[in-house]
Amino acid sequence: MPMPPARTTEQRKQDTLDRLERDEDVWVSTADEESATPYLVPLSFLWDGSTLLVATPAASPTGRNLRDTGRTRLAVGPTRDVVMIEGTAQTLTAAELPDGVGDAFAEKTGFDPRTLASPYLYFRITPRRIQAWREANEIAGRDLMHDGAWVDAP
Amino acid sequence: MPMPPARTTEQRKQDTLDRLERDEDVWVSTADEESATPYLVPLSFLWDGSTLLVATPAASPTGRNLRDTGRTRLAVGPTRDVVMIEGTAQTLTAAELPDGVGDAFAEKTGFDPRTLASPYLYFRITPRRIQAWREANEIAGRDLMHDGAWVDAP
Repeated sequence: MPMPPARTTEQRKQDTLDRLERDEDVWVSTADEESATPYLVPLSFLWDGSTLLVATPAASPTGRNLRDTGRTRLAVGPTRDVVMIEGTAQTLTAAELPDGVGDAFAEKTGFDPRTLASPYLYFRITPRRIQAWREANEIAGRDLMHDGAWVDAP
Repeated sequence: MPMPPARTTEQRKQDTLDRLERDEDVWVSTADEESATPYLVPLSFLWDGSTLLVATPAASPTGRNLRDTGRTRLAVGPTRDVVMIEGTAQTLTAAELPDGVGDAFAEKTGFDPRTLASPYLYFRITPRRIQAWREANEIAGRDLMHDGAWVDAP
């Protein structure tokens, strides 16, 4: 099957925003600050137009790593249609969520950490760098965001 | 839609081996040894019955991290049918590959790093821990391998 032509920057940005709006899950990679042990899990997320919100047990490796380092690299989409995001993570307790955000998260993801007995933390992840590609012919032009700003279409 | 019943340990092991045999790509998370910066990319892989073989540019973040730390956490499958693998990575040049392995890798993945001008490294990843789950009801019983040994079915 021939490889489809590479998408334009504008099309990749639109596809990326569509995926952030509609996809359910994000791959969250983090690392332990002391040992540099890599960690990876899929989590449900809510996109608010500029940040992703995830929630995970405070005592889990991902919860500890995000709280300790504030750094993550995310993937949304399947391996042949990826959106890769480097972001900074802000830790929020349920009490610190802005009005309505806890409800919006529960509605989008189908799970509400506020109702669980075990302690959860929320993390608001702000993209600093975004790349999107499908196949080898889309490696060139894959950078969509640098230093938190969308790249202009060439 | 009701959640399907949780699979048995035996079924999860069989599904995991099927996925390792047939899937094309693996999510590879690593970390920089000094800065503990997390990294994540999808790579094509070849499964030989007990290890995964991947290849990536020697100068890429994943190539450097795997060579420096020998540690990775992998994911195979979509977010709602995951196989999570913690493994140790052995670095191999093309010249160090056993007979036939370079050809087998090229045939399975459709790309042959030996033909490329830029320097690539191969990494043979040995699973130490494997988990598999689909939905929330499969979190219990998700451990399939501990310390490199398959868990016996209960």
